[in-house]
Amino acid sequence: MKNAVVLLSGGLDSATVLAWMRREGYACHALSFHYGQRHSIELARAAELAQALGALEHKVTEIDLRVFGGSALTADIDVPKDRADRDIAHGVPITYVPARNTIFLAFALAYAETLGASDIAIGVNAIDYSGYPDCRPEFISAFERLANLATKAGAQDGARFRVHTPLQELSKAGIVRLAVELGVPVGRTLSCYDPSSEGVPCGHCDSCILRRRGFAEAGIRDGA
Amino acid sequence: MKNAVVLLSGGLDSATVLAWMRREGYACHALSFHYGQRHSIELARAAELAQALGALEHKVTEIDLRVFGGSALTADIDVPKDRADRDIAHGVPITYVPARNTIFLAFALAYAETLGASDIAIGVNAIDYSGYPDCRPEFISAFERLANLATKAGAQDGARFRVHTPLQELSKAGIVRLAVELGVPVGRTLSCYDPSSEGVPCGHCDSCILRRRGFAEAGIRDGA
Repeated sequence: MKNAVVLLSGGLDSATVLAWMRREGYACHALSFHYGQRHSIELARAAELAQALGALEHKVTEIDLRVFGGSALTADIDVPKDRADRDIAHGVPITYVPARNTIFLAFALAYAETLGASDIAIGVNAIDYSGYPDCRPEFISAFERLANLATKAGAQDGARFRVHTPLQELSKAGIVRLAVELGVPVGRTLSCYDPSSEGVPCGHCDSCILRRRGFAEAGIRDGA
Repeated sequence: MKNAVVLLSGGLDSATVLAWMRREGYACHALSFHYGQRHSIELARAAELAQALGALEHKVTEIDLRVFGGSALTADIDVPKDRADRDIAHGVPITYVPARNTIFLAFALAYAETLGASDIAIGVNAIDYSGYPDCRPEFISAFERLANLATKAGAQDGARFRVHTPLQELSKAGIVRLAVELGVPVGRTLSCYDPSSEGVPCGHCDSCILRRRGFAEAGIRDGA
């Protein structure tokens, strides 16, 4: 079995990516970050999901994005609630963390190189394109190119890094359907930007709104 | 004055880069990492150099590369001493940290975006090309391309990130001459991979050997 590094947040999307990579036959090494996010309950969920979905191991690495501020997810800024559709759909949201996926993928690359792996998976998807520049396919391609130049494996040993993005073309309803098909325990995933310390979602942030709509469109009950 | 982020380790090379960026007229924001390196004395030197060379601020961010192991600088592996020239010149050394410059530049990018800056500087140079893949010019170009795609500034606001590498074509002797010309207090820089806790260099690691030769070739006394 080929090793792969899977970025796992504890949310629905990354859990679905882990289940997808397992079905593809990869031995999965899950990687989560503790980055001063206010909702560290998501790390407990990530650990639970890694085990439930058969990851070989789960590493959590601490990084400090708070020194840079600049996001509602890391700084002392309120997460926006009950926003209108046009506001959710357009522009870079205040929950954008500067260069976050670049940092996450850089760590995944370090981990992959240590394992001798050349496969990395991340749950970026079309819903996020408009708002988060580092979720677009051209960003992912640019990172693959960088990875081949950045590493001993790529530069000397001819490895060709691949960043798997199985959710890239899916709507939230499509992700919900795929998650259920792959046996993801969706009720244990946590998408909310502002959950209680016990993991109860707020129900009003952009992520809760998109999740609720996705389950409704898929005709599937959340939490089942 | 334009803001720039300068990666600063406390070594001769990055201190020279900071002095060069100051002379170019940038308001410099120095960034160092505490990454489980065994020689954290270098961070004290970085702070001292940031102040001496007129950086506007100096941030230190903690990252944990030890979870990935794989390098003599982060894991429990001995730093090689008194190696022959042919061994120093060829192959990826055991002091290579997987994807390190990718991670460092990703954090610099986050910091730059927070500042509204599009200039980043790093002390990579020709001496390292053969051994460290993430010091090559093609890696730096690939990172610039990634940065423009990865960020709100690049994707929406038309910023064009530039990674300055003023040492790229210089030999160690050339770096020593430039450092002295720019007024870097070279005696306070620390290049050693394995210094004492008070910052006394070992004199026998690759970095000490290259430094000693560089000063000799430049006809300059180290520590002055």
